This record gives sequence, structure tokens and C-alpha cells, in this order.
Amino acid sequence: MKHPLALAIHGGAGTIRRHRMTPEAEARYRAGLEAALQVGYAVLARGGHALDAAEAAVLSLEDNPLFNAGKGAVYAHDGTHRFDAAVMRGDTRQAGSVACIRGVRNPIRLARLVMEQSAYVMMVGPEAEDFARLHGLPFEDTAYFHDELRYQQWLRVKDSDQMTLDHSDKGEKNYSTVGAVACDRAGNLAAATSTGGMTNKRFGRVGDSPIIGAGTYADNATCAISATGHGEPFMRAVVAHDVAALMAYRGLSLAEATAEVIHHKLPGMHGSGGLIAVDAQGQVALPFNCEGMYRGSWQEGGLPVVRIFGDE
Amino acid sequence: MKHPLALAIHGGAGTIRRHRMTPEAEARYRAGLEAALQVGYAVLARGGHALDAAEAAVLSLEDNPLFNAGKGAVYAHDGTHRFDAAVMRGDTRQAGSVACIRGVRNPIRLARLVMEQSAYVMMVGPEAEDFARLHGLPFEDTAYFHDELRYQQWLRVKDSDQMTLDHSDKGEKNYSTVGAVACDRAGNLAAATSTGGMTNKRFGRVGDSPIIGAGTYADNATCAISATGHGEPFMRAVVAHDVAALMAYRGLSLAEATAEVIHHKLPGMHGSGGLIAVDAQGQVALPFNCEGMYRGSWQEGGLPVVRIFGDE
Repeated sequence: MKHPLALAIHGGAGTIRRHRMTPEAEARYRAGLEAALQVGYAVLARGGHALDAAEAAVLSLEDNPLFNAGKGAVYAHDGTHRFDAAVMRGDTRQAGSVACIRGVRNPIRLARLVMEQSAYVMMVGPEAEDFARLHGLPFEDTAYFHDELRYQQWLRVKDSDQMTLDHSDKGEKNYSTVGAVACDRAGNLAAATSTGGMTNKRFGRVGDSPIIGAGTYADNATCAISATGHGEPFMRAVVAHDVAALMAYRGLSLAEATAEVIHHKLPGMHGSGGLIAVDAQGQVALPFNCEGMYRGSWQEGGLPVVRIFGDE
Repeated sequence: MKHPLALAIHGGAGTIRRHRMTPEAEARYRAGLEAALQVGYAVLARGGHALDAAEAAVLSLEDNPLFNAGKGAVYAHDGTHRFDAAVMRGDTRQAGSVACIRGVRNPIRLARLVMEQSAYVMMVGPEAEDFARLHGLPFEDTAYFHDELRYQQWLRVKDSDQMTLDHSDKGEKNYSTVGAVACDRAGNLAAATSTGGMTNKRFGRVGDSPIIGAGTYADNATCAISATGHGEPFMRAVVAHDVAALMAYRGLSLAEATAEVIHHKLPGMHGSGGLIAVDAQGQVALPFNCEGMYRGSWQEGGLPVVRIFGDE
């Protein structure tokens, strides 16, 4: 049986409002999302695996300084960048994840390396960086990850105990993460998520992105999920696995299950954010319970769709 | 409504066989489990919260050199001890977790501190140790954590890339973790898990114990769970949340849901181990799919029960 191709991506969610964004900034975000959709969908279109498609899309977003992952990551409390990332493939349900790592140019590659070249699912901290070096992954210095806007955001809060969300210079609360989910021709699903976390985060804080079942999950029998939101409620609610469980055990559709979690369950835990999801029938869902989410999707037979605001 | 008190604990699972254990060793293990049950149940009996009971039981097991957590932790690849721990309370669904930390005498206390004194759910690595110091948690040096048997186990494999399981000197494969789950008078549930991980683990490996939804989970509406097993399959299967989801969405009882996950779903992922579970009606379940599990339970109106082997 041939499955319809599908890809969905996100670049974070939060209080994203049209009147606060210049047309130029909006155009840059849309172009970045469109570019990620194009590279990811191209993998699917040439018969590639969902995992390769999801990884390709996330690599594009990691390399784009607009998004809080890889090159565009926010500053942690100590003035460095810390990355979390995870991948999961729905056919074998293998997974790989890294947290609180520094200097790795593309954290999503390291997450995949953990999945494919180690007996582990998760590695954290400086020793995970050793694993990256052992396998020859490219590292970058602080200058590569520097972004003046994010540096200024950090300078404003670094002497406080406050952890702020990305892009908060205009009173916005953004949960910045990037992610991709894909369904390939064989009906294999995959999810990939990468983030720089929250500005001024400290104490080795880890959010939901690299937690299998919370921010990232994939199972061919149900769905692939990549979440973006206030990480702590997403972890406590085990968001991604909860969507899959509602489909598996209660028979909900992808749209129903994702809506139930994002619009009904999470608000009760003060969980603000969204997620992207795909199932093996090529259906996609991109729900969020905040003002906006940088997002895009491309379903076979249709055109790539890129959206930012809640009223689109 | 008054709920019946219940407590369950574990001290790891694996190829634990009667003929391989001396009567003296067996007696020490049983005494250690009994002691943990006593301190945990005493908290419940005097009207304490399930979280305090679960923490008290785990503290007892962490301080006991027989179990792979706290004082009895195994050696990691670099000759130090790394701890993972998590707590979750089912009333508020707050959670706290730490991974890949060193030197903290009682990692379960640090997990609780993360839950109660930070805005985070999870902290990892040296910076999490800074958080422990900031709050005055006791640290210990290498001598405190030294155990000759575990040191010899590590010496035999340290120059290999092999990661071995605890107690493997006689060809046994043990997944050593400690944990406790409790139901208090008000029907509040809580779970606590702590581990030293696997002998010779490296690269900042994190297992299922500190992952909310995998090794540790609690929700008053369903159950509290602490798992012990080969961490990687447990993480990929999101074991603890899967039990809760089977109860919530498919209406299974605690016994049915835990059996489904441990005996039917996990073996398909080569997931060996077990878990302890309690619900708000004071029911307990302690299933495992390997030869034995160090375990104990105490339900109100009954006597404390301690078991080790699969045929008990």
C-alpha cells in the first residue's frame, strides 16, 4: 500500500501578533519555513525515509538564525548556548536524544547519532559532546551562534533569576523550538525536534523537546509529534505520547487527539504552546493554544502552506 | 472519602535466581526492603502525604549499599558515580528530576528540590549540582560511594566499550534502580525513582528513571508508577504513562494495565524489567518479565510483604 506523503514543521509558538511584526520580518520567517518545507519534502518526493525528511527540515531551521535552535539559539544564564534535540522513527520506535550540550553545529545530527551509533537513547552534557567529537560532528565557536538581538535579550535579564522566553523584547512570550514530522511513501513516520531552550535558563535545565513522549514521539501505528511550548507543563502532561494514546486506546483521529490535548488538557495545567502531528494516512494537524505558531505543512497533491498567526 | 493506605517499593529487577544467592545475602536484601517499607508506611500511617512516604522509602534504599542508588551506586566509565532520580505527585502532577549528577548524597532529595524550589522539571549535569549546593544539600566524596564489589565489576569492563548491568559478576543481568509508590489517606498518589544507572555507562547516558512518563509518573486519576528495567526500551515505550493511558482511555484496572505493558508490549521491544504501581483505591501491582525483582508492598489491613524471586 502506498501512503500519501506529508510533512509538517514548526518554528516555535507564542504571543505572535501581526501588528507587532514588520512586513520584512514576516517575509523572512515565511521564507525560512518555506525553505525548510522544500528541503524536507524533496526527500519524501524522491522516495526517502520520513526520518531523513524530518531531519533535513530541522537542519534547515537549525541553520537559520531566525529560529531558536542551532545557529539561532538563545543565550543561557552563563552566556553560552545549550542545545536539546531528539529524533524518533515510528517504524522501529528507535529514538535518540541529547540535552544540555554546547558547540555542536547541528544538535539534531547528534540526536540521530545517539539513536544509530550507540546503545543509548539519551545523552546529556559535556560527555555527549565527547560522543559528537568521536564521530566527527562539526563544532562551532561562540561567534557562530552569536545573534545581537538574542544577546541583548539575555543582557537585560542575566543578572536576575528570571528565565525568559524567546523574543520577549516586546512583551511577547514565545516558546521557541523547531521541529518536523513526516510520513513517507511506505507509511513510515518520524519526528525531530531541536531547541536552544529559554533565555537565561540555568542549572542545566532541560525542557520537553528531548524527552521521548513529551516533546518528541513517533509510532507508525498512531502518529509522529513534535511539540513547542512551555516545556515544563508539556513534560508533566507527557504530551506527545498522550496524543498517540488517545488515538490507540480511544480511537480518536489525529485531529481529535491533538485538539483534545492542546485545547482541553494542557490549558488545565497552564500549558501554553502547540504541536505538529502527522499520521500514516498523510493527515496533518498543527494545533496551538496561544496567539500564533510559526508553522508549515505540505500534503501530497497540495501546495506547501506556511502560516504564522492564529487568524490565518 | 478515606482511601486505604498502600506502599510499594522496588530495588531493581533482573536474572535474580535463588540458587545463586547465599542465605546471608538474601537475608540482607530482605531486611533492606523491609526497612524501606517500614519507614515509608510509617509516614502514611501518621497521616503523611504519599510524596513524603515515597521519598522516605527511597531515601532508605539510597542509603543502603546493597541497592544501586545513592550510596550503593555502580561505577560509570570514568570511575565516578552518576545519579538519576525523579519524583512526581499525582495531586498537582508536579514533577522534579535530575540526571547525570555527581556527589549528591541523596539524589531523590534533589529531584524533589527541583520540583518544589525551581520553575523547572528537569536539571542535568554539573549545573544541577550547583542548584543542590545553593540549597545546602549534603554532598559526599568518592569514598562514601565506594563499594568493593561494584568497583571490581567496573574494573573488569572499564577498558571495553561495554556497558554492563549491575551485579553481573555471575552472569546475571540486573537492572538496578530503587523506587517507591504510595497512596495516602486522601487518595493522593506519588512516585519516586533513583538510580546509579549502568556500570561503565559513558557519554552522559540517561536512562528511564528520571524521565517523567517513562520510569516515573503519578496522576491521582490513574496510578503512580516507578519502573526498573533496561532503560532504553522503557524510554521508547514511555512505559509509565502508557500504563496510566491504558487505565484512563481503555478502562483497564491497575493489574490489567500493568500486565499489558510489562508482559505484552515491552517484550516486543526487547524490554526486560518490571515496575511497581499503586492506584487511589490502594491497589498495588508489581509485575516483571524477568527472573526476579527486589520488591515489597504494604496494603492497609495487611502485613508488609517482601519478595525477591519470580516463584514467590
